[in-house]
Amino acid sequence: MNFLRLFANWDDVHEFEPDSVIFSDTDTADAVYVVLDGTVELRLRGEPLCEEGKGSILGELALSGSPHRSAVATARTPVRLARLERDRFESMIGRHPEFALHVMSALANRLRSVDSFISTHIGKTD
Amino acid sequence: MNFLRLFANWDDVHEFEPDSVIFSDTDTADAVYVVLDGTVELRLRGEPLCEEGKGSILGELALSGSPHRSAVATARTPVRLARLERDRFESMIGRHPEFALHVMSALANRLRSVDSFISTHIGKTD
Repeated sequence: MNFLRLFANWDDVHEFEPDSVIFSDTDTADAVYVVLDGTVELRLRGEPLCEEGKGSILGELALSGSPHRSAVATARTPVRLARLERDRFESMIGRHPEFALHVMSALANRLRSVDSFISTHIGKTD
Repeated sequence: MNFLRLFANWDDVHEFEPDSVIFSDTDTADAVYVVLDGTVELRLRGEPLCEEGKGSILGELALSGSPHRSAVATARTPVRLARLERDRFESMIGRHPEFALHVMSALANRLRSVDSFISTHIGKTD
């Protein structure tokens, strides 16, 4: 996770105590977060989706122009996040391909978690 | 969708007739596809997820190291796809930030579609 060095002196870092809500599914999706330290739990529709640690990407629906978050993110431990508004995020992607590849892989992993969530809660209907 | 010019002379293009299966949810996830022409329907667990057109990204779970596809992709019209194995995909991301941003936005949109799928098939439980 070499890309984390890009955030070593980041000027928009947010800290959360254990059990505090980082964002809720009714919040506006206005920025993407990179987990610098700690563990974050994501829940969909009240059910656990996954736990994410250092280097994870949160709030990626901001990239799709979605007006709202889809998940609730809660700190499981003390958590530090780097916040990237869309312009800064795009600039980082353009300048740092290793960050771009990491974000893509993280989004694909999230899709895999959601797919597994669907398997558990819906099951195969075909 | 300026990034489509990157695929104007692509050497790994696949064509599908209407109603043919592009990939199935039991296939190995070994490459990512870019839709060059046509409309593709994605189904999850036998239920419609979304329709994707020119410029869309398909098969993105290959980026997460997932061994299998999660969706079934079917051509609704004549379809042309550019196929990118992982190495070529990563090379394109590194050299073309506009492609990287497009892929990320496409992945976020897919997450939004899946979120909407979950709302329809599970509903809010909290």
